[in-house]
Amino acid sequence: MTKTIGYAAKHSVSALRPMFIDRREPGASDVVIDVMFCGVCHSDVHQVKNEWKNTVYPCMPGHEIVGRVTAVGASVKKFGAGDLVGVGCMVDSCRECRSCKEGLEQYCERGFLATYNGNARNPSEENLTFGGYSESIVVREDFVLRIPSGMSLASAAPLMCAGLTTFSPMRYWKVGPGTSLAVVGLGGLGHMAVKLARALGADVTVISTSPDKKEAARILGAKKLIVSTEKKEMEEAESSFDFILSTIPQPHDVNIYMPLLKRDGILTIVGCIAPLTKPLDISGMIMDRRVLATSLIGGVAETQEVLDFAAKNGISADVKVIPIDEVNDAFKTVDEGEVPYRFVIDMASIKGKTEDDSLMAKVGL
Amino acid sequence: MTKTIGYAAKHSVSALRPMFIDRREPGASDVVIDVMFCGVCHSDVHQVKNEWKNTVYPCMPGHEIVGRVTAVGASVKKFGAGDLVGVGCMVDSCRECRSCKEGLEQYCERGFLATYNGNARNPSEENLTFGGYSESIVVREDFVLRIPSGMSLASAAPLMCAGLTTFSPMRYWKVGPGTSLAVVGLGGLGHMAVKLARALGADVTVISTSPDKKEAARILGAKKLIVSTEKKEMEEAESSFDFILSTIPQPHDVNIYMPLLKRDGILTIVGCIAPLTKPLDISGMIMDRRVLATSLIGGVAETQEVLDFAAKNGISADVKVIPIDEVNDAFKTVDEGEVPYRFVIDMASIKGKTEDDSLMAKVGL
Repeated sequence: MTKTIGYAAKHSVSALRPMFIDRREPGASDVVIDVMFCGVCHSDVHQVKNEWKNTVYPCMPGHEIVGRVTAVGASVKKFGAGDLVGVGCMVDSCRECRSCKEGLEQYCERGFLATYNGNARNPSEENLTFGGYSESIVVREDFVLRIPSGMSLASAAPLMCAGLTTFSPMRYWKVGPGTSLAVVGLGGLGHMAVKLARALGADVTVISTSPDKKEAARILGAKKLIVSTEKKEMEEAESSFDFILSTIPQPHDVNIYMPLLKRDGILTIVGCIAPLTKPLDISGMIMDRRVLATSLIGGVAETQEVLDFAAKNGISADVKVIPIDEVNDAFKTVDEGEVPYRFVIDMASIKGKTEDDSLMAKVGL
Repeated sequence: MTKTIGYAAKHSVSALRPMFIDRREPGASDVVIDVMFCGVCHSDVHQVKNEWKNTVYPCMPGHEIVGRVTAVGASVKKFGAGDLVGVGCMVDSCRECRSCKEGLEQYCERGFLATYNGNARNPSEENLTFGGYSESIVVREDFVLRIPSGMSLASAAPLMCAGLTTFSPMRYWKVGPGTSLAVVGLGGLGHMAVKLARALGADVTVISTSPDKKEAARILGAKKLIVSTEKKEMEEAESSFDFILSTIPQPHDVNIYMPLLKRDGILTIVGCIAPLTKPLDISGMIMDRRVLATSLIGGVAETQEVLDFAAKNGISADVKVIPIDEVNDAFKTVDEGEVPYRFVIDMASIKGKTEDDSLMAKVGL
């Protein structure tokens, strides 16, 4: 075991504070990674606050990891010390079910092992996984990605979740040249979706409640931003999209977007894992054979694909790099409303930190 | 104009009673049809009771029509006097939009002209359409179907709506040999869905609240019936279907069926044109990339396709043939709960009827 410092929450109302954890000694198939950057995903906020009702504490988030290999197990073939690598939302799966065999580990029939808060079905500190808000991590080779050469490391980190999550359904539903596509919500996921959709050749519009994101949308490559609370703008966009990607990370009402789809159009939800706020109105769908689809992150091979695709197309996330000390402020910002970029923690800032001996930490908060 | 007797409702609370209407003189492209049989669709009940809030009265329902051609306009090429023909849910569309040009008149961008209660956007008695609960109808050639030789005429009528409505999404989503398929609801649509899905090669299960339909499901070709209120039966069916077709004609909760879909499975709603009863729970879909789709009847070419497919495969609707006098009782039965067959009116029974001079008719009920 290797004693490792990271930032974790002890309860759903706790701030993230420094905590020591043990990383396992690398097995034959393991890769030891010195974490360099880690993205702040809205899921991290959901999980820390136990909004999915499955959090096991302490909770050390982080699943948009970029780092450098410091050691590898005896049978590791793809990586060696010094390599720049990434780790996304998963660190293992059953490897035997149909989904795993098809490279769709995110839909593993036995449930994938999440990078943090994993093994929640059989929770104990011993088998709980801890994420990338830490100085190092040990991951099976099969779940480690190669960072294409020349990529900015901080900007590559969000591809591991935000990039993948938006890329996967676009690939599955064959978004490409000529697709008229709308991205709902311009946050971490949304801003990646705009860039990736543009690179796939789609004609991109952003739909947001925030008129003040118009310029950001334009710079990202969207031809326009529709303000969803403006009735006239929404009416003018009726029957104009082949594909709508809802990146809203909270329960919302999708009925308002359905009329914007063309016949046979597809609205895919990627950010919300909860009941929607209102019953789906079939009358707004059936007259044009509209479809509501869902998509969860992506597989390991697809994670490599989005990294390579982004590198080839010269795109990556827009990031605001912060030291680990500022992570609680970043959580607050993300929780209060999406920002059209990603906070990424420069994990060099964790070096030398030690476990918190403040009163708050002592009382467990 | 030709004075024609039919059965119509004068208000949302009226029974259907005999009423004279005028059928237009046939134009060059028109086919005049002596109605022989007309199916009783749950839509007829919805429409007469104004449950879709768009009924224009008087309302003369009927869109599962089989009859014999008595005359044709000068430019009609496909039909001649004496031919056995069918008419479904539509009698015209714009013929110019993308959907019409693709043979998907049901999604006509300007709205198709419904066989009855049509032109509701510009309602007046003059341009309102009247359906097949009448002795004759005049329809544009392009919306008239050929009844394959050898088919039972009464049993062919429900193919025009119930058959088509269930066939269309099965074709769209490529149901075929090896598809594990469940039909929710065993009524007019449901019983056709079972037969058509079997003929397409699918492995079919029925899901119903009625355990007493088990034998009916088996006879239709389903391998079993799952009682949706039996928790154990539903749990045992988890992750077992590629495709679920919900034929329930009322608002319902689809969340209970979602866990029954395999990864990438599709639940298609064909019977309900209203908000569902409960918000869709994305957590029950996203973990397996499940999809909720919708589908509305089918196009004209597809109506001919389902007729020909049914004839080739020796299938048709199970029907209970009734005289027109019993149509109000049939409405009551359909409204109270689905029956695993179709009421079909023998329209010969309307011959000699005349307008109702009862007190109820006089006061407009």
